[in-house]
Amino acid sequence: MKVSAADLFVKVRERKPLVHQITNFVTVNDCANATLAIGGSPVMTSSPREVADMVKLADALVLNFGTIDDKALEAMEIAGKTANALDIPVILDPVGVGATAYRTEQVTELLRKVNFQIIRGNASEIHRLMGGDIVTRGVDSGELTISNAELAAQAANKLNSVVVVSGAKDAVSDGKHTSIIDNGNLLLTNVTGTGCMATALIGTFSGVTDDFYAAAVAGISTMSISGELAAAKLQEDEGTGTFRVRLIDAISRMNKETWMHEVKINEEIQN
Amino acid sequence: MKVSAADLFVKVRERKPLVHQITNFVTVNDCANATLAIGGSPVMTSSPREVADMVKLADALVLNFGTIDDKALEAMEIAGKTANALDIPVILDPVGVGATAYRTEQVTELLRKVNFQIIRGNASEIHRLMGGDIVTRGVDSGELTISNAELAAQAANKLNSVVVVSGAKDAVSDGKHTSIIDNGNLLLTNVTGTGCMATALIGTFSGVTDDFYAAAVAGISTMSISGELAAAKLQEDEGTGTFRVRLIDAISRMNKETWMHEVKINEEIQN
Amino acid sequence: MKVSAADLFVKVRERKPLVHQITNFVTVNDCANATLAIGGSPVMTSSPREVADMVKLADALVLNFGTIDDKALEAMEIAGKTANALDIPVILDPVGVGATAYRTEQVTELLRKVNFQIIRGNASEIHRLMGGDIVTRGVDSGELTISNAELAAQAANKLNSVVVVSGAKDAVSDGKHTSIIDNGNLLLTNVTGTGCMATALIGTFSGVTDDFYAAAVAGISTMSISGELAAAKLQEDEGTGTFRVRLIDAISRMNKETWMHEVKINEEIQN
Repeated sequence: MKVSAADLFVKVRERKPLVHQITNFVTVNDCANATLAIGGSPVMTSSPREVADMVKLADALVLNFGTIDDKALEAMEIAGKTANALDIPVILDPVGVGATAYRTEQVTELLRKVNFQIIRGNASEIHRLMGGDIVTRGVDSGELTISNAELAAQAANKLNSVVVVSGAKDAVSDGKHTSIIDNGNLLLTNVTGTGCMATALIGTFSGVTDDFYAAAVAGISTMSISGELAAAKLQEDEGTGTFRVRLIDAISRMNKETWMHEVKINEEIQN
Repeated sequence: MKVSAADLFVKVRERKPLVHQITNFVTVNDCANATLAIGGSPVMTSSPREVADMVKLADALVLNFGTIDDKALEAMEIAGKTANALDIPVILDPVGVGATAYRTEQVTELLRKVNFQIIRGNASEIHRLMGGDIVTRGVDSGELTISNAELAAQAANKLNSVVVVSGAKDAVSDGKHTSIIDNGNLLLTNVTGTGCMATALIGTFSGVTDDFYAAAVAGISTMSISGELAAAKLQEDEGTGTFRVRLIDAISRMNKETWMHEVKINEEIQN
Repeated sequence: MKVSAADLFVKVRERKPLVHQITNFVTVNDCANATLAIGGSPVMTSSPREVADMVKLADALVLNFGTIDDKALEAMEIAGKTANALDIPVILDPVGVGATAYRTEQVTELLRKVNFQIIRGNASEIHRLMGGDIVTRGVDSGELTISNAELAAQAANKLNSVVVVSGAKDAVSDGKHTSIIDNGNLLLTNVTGTGCMATALIGTFSGVTDDFYAAAVAGISTMSISGELAAAKLQEDEGTGTFRVRLIDAISRMNKETWMHEVKINEEIQN
């Protein structure tokens, strides 16, 4: 698995996949820049009048719940169904699901209508997608007693999708194989959009392969490793503004060699 | 007052208040990052379908007029009334009020429906909230003959709120006490969102105290001091891009000690 | 022409033109900061309820198609007609036109209703405005066999507007004179919003002169030269995050002297 993920860094810069993202207005610029930094081409339109046409040109579709409203949800359904029909991979980021009844209801509805190849969230969001009753605080993760790896594996089976659970250790599972990634830095939680950008990276990698498990591993670990590299360079008189700039620097400089050298990954096989 | 404001820097990092912000699409990312930098947790949803649910989880609510439309105003009213009912502090940033009839009418309407604990604007915006007839140029401040301190004190009494008037010297008043803060740097006017971020900081501090006067002083002075610190580091070959990054750096590094050392504040007591 | 463009750098900082921009939610913050960096004052409101009032205060109006929807288009029509009636210059950025039927239809409609003094796009967007049938890939440029200079000249005559075609070499034409600008750096394509920011700069310069050809040359070349200057400073361990910060630095430091020294421009006279 490590080798198949590593090869994606070359492929993504060769093919420059077009990644259509229907996302929130808070971190949309960050997601576009992260997509460009890793080698993809972002397009962020969300009008129900044109998303079907746009997704037909795309290599992957990312649906992000950060600031959903009825219009964005209408666009997500149209784009998601179109992508499903054309075998274009669809990636879900259920931001803040569990925080309000609206989010929980709408994501349940969307999961019924659209098939997702990859889903990325924090532990409480993924737990909630499975029908759990943890109360989410705003859009941040709550506290759970199950490990990220176990949660990812259970969710992958239940949701019939590759599932990424982000946290201190990230877990990626397709239900049979589960990778635990021990990279990252706490500063990633002090900058908005690092979760959304991780999903954008996963979407970009899924635009150049059918191995969605490898795409998910490559995407989430790129963000966590970039967080480590950016934090390592931080001088004593610098803060989260500089960290954020160096994070994009690190993504734009990431390649197969750096990734192979930095990634700390363990794979478990479920029975 | 200086001591009570200083203590908020410790409290905000301990409690990590959730700050719900219904704000504009221009500077929303900056506001989220400023909130995180000082130690809060931002959530920026603005759908009328879920803001009541979200504000119930929040420690403070910020309503920002930067790019209002009918839907955002509907969400502001719902969220504002919910916050009032639950004693969650509500902060208003009347961006650009006075520039168009729509803004002036809508802010007047909102002031009737929602009680604000803190209001922050530039002199022409605050003057307009009081029914003044200065013509605002775009979203920038016009020219007024009254001092910021006097304007803040009058507005605080008239609007029954703590009022912050930003400018070369910032003024904060609860109608009885008025603080004049002599920090800041002209470069703050060459970067978009510094006013909005100041309001986000005020909102974050108001999430950990009932002393809204202290929260307002802590918030507005953090932005002005951070502007000074960022400008002081600027090299000859750098410009407003680097200044903006260092501004967030300075906010993320701000603490009680730095604030006590840097703040230039005078308090007047009104009779 | 070179001299008349050069003089605009002084004028723009003296007059601080108010530039009303109805633009996309991806790069709106970048556009506001670019406008401020060169010396303008941005206002980005897009509610149909107030754009007519706002544009009356403005020195220029920029309409950007990045994330159009029906509401934004309604606002663009109102603002565009108001600007036309008041002789306020209107600048069009037809982002992604050609990618979807919706975009192509809507821009055709808008061109019928509003007169544009300047239009800026990449080659495939401009080609599409002229009725061409190149298929656009997302919002990026496709491949065309006509030179940017020839395309700009033809488009200027057909669309009765100054036309800027951005690319490896930028071309600006009023139909009679065509300037070819040989500045720029490939890194500009690895950061989102550089096209939109170029249009924002063009809009800002057009707010201080009636010579829209000179304004277009000054705006597009400022972006291309700033890309060169930012790339030249990039250290080995830096990437696109730092490049983007230095790009804004370079815009904020641009002046008549730097521009005269750096610009590589050739003017052709059409018969």
